[in-house]
Amino acid sequence: MSLLDRIKVCNNGTDDSAYAPFVVEGQRLGWVHCDFAPALKPFDDVFLVADNSVTLLDDLNDYQSRSDAVDPVLRALDADDWFSGWRDEAYPVGTGFYEQAFLEMERTAVPRFGVAAFGVHINGFVRDGNELLMWIGRRADDKPTYPGMLDNMVAGGQPVGLGLLQNVIKESAEEAAVPADISSLAKPVGAISYQHEDDNCLKPDTMFVFDMELPKDFIPTNTDGELAGFKLLPVREVMEITADTAEFKFNCAAVNVDFFVRHGILGPEDPDYIEIQRGLHQ
Amino acid sequence: MSLLDRIKVCNNGTDDSAYAPFVVEGQRLGWVHCDFAPALKPFDDVFLVADNSVTLLDDLNDYQSRSDAVDPVLRALDADDWFSGWRDEAYPVGTGFYEQAFLEMERTAVPRFGVAAFGVHINGFVRDGNELLMWIGRRADDKPTYPGMLDNMVAGGQPVGLGLLQNVIKESAEEAAVPADISSLAKPVGAISYQHEDDNCLKPDTMFVFDMELPKDFIPTNTDGELAGFKLLPVREVMEITADTAEFKFNCAAVNVDFFVRHGILGPEDPDYIEIQRGLHQ
Repeated sequence: MSLLDRIKVCNNGTDDSAYAPFVVEGQRLGWVHCDFAPALKPFDDVFLVADNSVTLLDDLNDYQSRSDAVDPVLRALDADDWFSGWRDEAYPVGTGFYEQAFLEMERTAVPRFGVAAFGVHINGFVRDGNELLMWIGRRADDKPTYPGMLDNMVAGGQPVGLGLLQNVIKESAEEAAVPADISSLAKPVGAISYQHEDDNCLKPDTMFVFDMELPKDFIPTNTDGELAGFKLLPVREVMEITADTAEFKFNCAAVNVDFFVRHGILGPEDPDYIEIQRGLHQ
Repeated sequence: MSLLDRIKVCNNGTDDSAYAPFVVEGQRLGWVHCDFAPALKPFDDVFLVADNSVTLLDDLNDYQSRSDAVDPVLRALDADDWFSGWRDEAYPVGTGFYEQAFLEMERTAVPRFGVAAFGVHINGFVRDGNELLMWIGRRADDKPTYPGMLDNMVAGGQPVGLGLLQNVIKESAEEAAVPADISSLAKPVGAISYQHEDDNCLKPDTMFVFDMELPKDFIPTNTDGELAGFKLLPVREVMEITADTAEFKFNCAAVNVDFFVRHGILGPEDPDYIEIQRGLHQ
């Protein structure tokens, strides 16, 4: 595969004909697959499941009442194995990152509702003269999603009630034991947006990307059990792994590619150069 | 205006109902406005002008014969003031930067045919501790296009027969007297694509962007008369000028915004952060 193919894997969610809009207060906030919609039917005091839409009942008319009503439904569905690993982490559900959310929802349920999710992805890198080296993480084998795959040094979903930089500092501490005086200097360098489809879930996701330069002698250590370990690799080796193998979790591969472009490692001699960058901002 | 509004100015070419496809060998290579198409009618040994298309005659069946046939037509149209300043610079005309061109065409005529054009834009910058300063150019008052407006330090169209880095080195020498040992280290950092409409011309353009770090004591000097002068400004001041004034040529403003994003000057606290980056890659 090429680097462009990695971006195409992110944007594989192009056919949404099997999905019905998930509507709250007249606004479409997500997409529900026709396989999952019937599972919501019994909960008719919360959801109205029609042929072509799933609507949160209008008498649930504020953030708290909507969140409180949806939560027990999700717990019941989790018991029926509709989700992959309850996290006890609330995600905002709304029309965009900068708009007021309509409710909050357990993180693991968000993809089933096709709701936009947000996260922070942090490229931990080291300069050695003119060479760049990247710290690469490997996901723990018992992670509910994408176990054992390669990952960015630090990455995490963006839950309710935390600022982006706060989240960068928190995740950097938990996942890689980066002290706050280093992680707080992580530099925002862009946002990557894609629409991924997997297991009848639509994920219109945005990753806020940060570059975090680390001292040469810093060694990351995982503290929360989410990563099995780290490796420090020359950036060109990371590019080869990203292009030639499927070892990286699909969206982490996109974060890598964006890093290669911004740092001039992948240049305009690549005939996919323009299309790759379009694909990073869908 | 906001920085997002600057990006929207680049992408103002959304309604193409007034344009007919410009077709060569069965492929659409551009768009011709209904005001301009009739001017091509007299040249019926070169163009077939129909109601809904402008086609290069099929018996012109290779690069050289097409280019040779089109050139005198363009010279005649230039005498009728259809173009703004003959440049004697050939642009490739094709389906994309990485595909074989079907013909070449005088640069100044390219927007009238709505053909994709390419260029290099170079951010010349200086580090002062943790602060960044950008060298900003001002276009000469006698430039045929956008006279007197602010510009990136170095920028130039991508003509036939020159590699991108060769063009970076050539334009850096001509426009700012940058020696090749510095300009050859300019780092490719991405490509910006937009579709701009102006004066009944459609411009589906791509700018290859380079960052060129300069020594603190380097002072650019224009040698080809295309720029009136340069100023070195703190990056935050460049951001204010870009947001608050229309002094920058429209596409140079986009190159600035991309620089602000990549260098963490414009961060995700801006509610337009995600949309701005989509707009840079249309």
